[in-house]
Amino acid sequence: MSLNHQQLFWHQAQVSKERRNNLNDHNSCVIWLTGLSASGKSSIANQLDKYMYSREIRSYVLDGDNVRHGLNKDLGFSPQDRKENIRRIGEVARLFVDAGLITIAAFISPYREDRQMVRSMFPAGDFIEVYVKCSIDVCEQRDPKGLYKMARTNQVKEFTGISAPYEVSEKPELVIETDKQTIEESVMQLIDYLQTHGYLSYQEP
Amino acid sequence: MSLNHQQLFWHQAQVSKERRNNLNDHNSCVIWLTGLSASGKSSIANQLDKYMYSREIRSYVLDGDNVRHGLNKDLGFSPQDRKENIRRIGEVARLFVDAGLITIAAFISPYREDRQMVRSMFPAGDFIEVYVKCSIDVCEQRDPKGLYKMARTNQVKEFTGISAPYEVSEKPELVIETDKQTIEESVMQLIDYLQTHGYLSYQEP
Repeated sequence: MSLNHQQLFWHQAQVSKERRNNLNDHNSCVIWLTGLSASGKSSIANQLDKYMYSREIRSYVLDGDNVRHGLNKDLGFSPQDRKENIRRIGEVARLFVDAGLITIAAFISPYREDRQMVRSMFPAGDFIEVYVKCSIDVCEQRDPKGLYKMARTNQVKEFTGISAPYEVSEKPELVIETDKQTIEESVMQLIDYLQTHGYLSYQEP
Repeated sequence: MSLNHQQLFWHQAQVSKERRNNLNDHNSCVIWLTGLSASGKSSIANQLDKYMYSREIRSYVLDGDNVRHGLNKDLGFSPQDRKENIRRIGEVARLFVDAGLITIAAFISPYREDRQMVRSMFPAGDFIEVYVKCSIDVCEQRDPKGLYKMARTNQVKEFTGISAPYEVSEKPELVIETDKQTIEESVMQLIDYLQTHGYLSYQEP
């Protein structure tokens, strides 16, 4: 027999999420931004994080691009690797939420099943799925990294929306239409959601 | 050509580690506790975390046992899997330190090279290696999980100190001898280190 997970004991962290939330005076959660490349996910995430900071709310951005340079640099873009990419990010988000932070995750995360997998890691209310909706035409016009152009000329393969699927969210907590409003309006829409749902001050569970 | 990492752009988080440290009024870092099973790493980690909480310092424990139930549940105990286990934890710790938290990592992490790999992820001063020193005899007497007994009877294979190596830290920032002092004394020794080295109040970089 080899050492296995049954023989490991879960060390209950002695400072609970609730106590950390109480200290921070807000509730921790994950805000999961999903949508096409160039739909505005990272811009919204970083602007929201700046707003949080200005209000002394503890937050952090997990970003598809920067996580891929570190934790997930061993993974590619096949469906299997995309799944593992999302699984690991979900687990990291779980640690961040347990640590008391409002965790803003900005990932294309094109598969419904993968987003559902992450949702299932969290208690109800701790996972907020935000569909960052933008037509592929507008994304392709923006194309800040020239990736759509490369996908169209087949220089990039397995590109979401062009040569790989994007499965639209069926029941997201929020839809943000970035082809109809500015980044600032989108961020305000998110803040309004958090405010009206009681995340921005501590609520006893 | 497939989408690769060169085509990804590093989204510089717009709120820097320094600004988060300033808000929290302490410096973030990783305290990396390494040592044999039952040497006291998790106990020290959790007691230290409780102390931090009592001082309103933002901290979090990453623990070998609980990370293995989530992020690293796909990994076993071979040298290769132990290396990947430590690499991922190092990357997660990097995110936590960037987010402004004093991150307490409690892992056997038996290989010098793996600990060096994690150290190299951080700027000088952000990685504090703590060798939790305890004779194998004392660890084996404690044996809270019965794992040494199982290792001795070969029911558990690749067990550090018995059937797998532990490479002692050569230049740790701190050595804590848990077979010569109580957990409370060990925690106080760590707090003293953090205090005298300026981590517990914000120091401009």
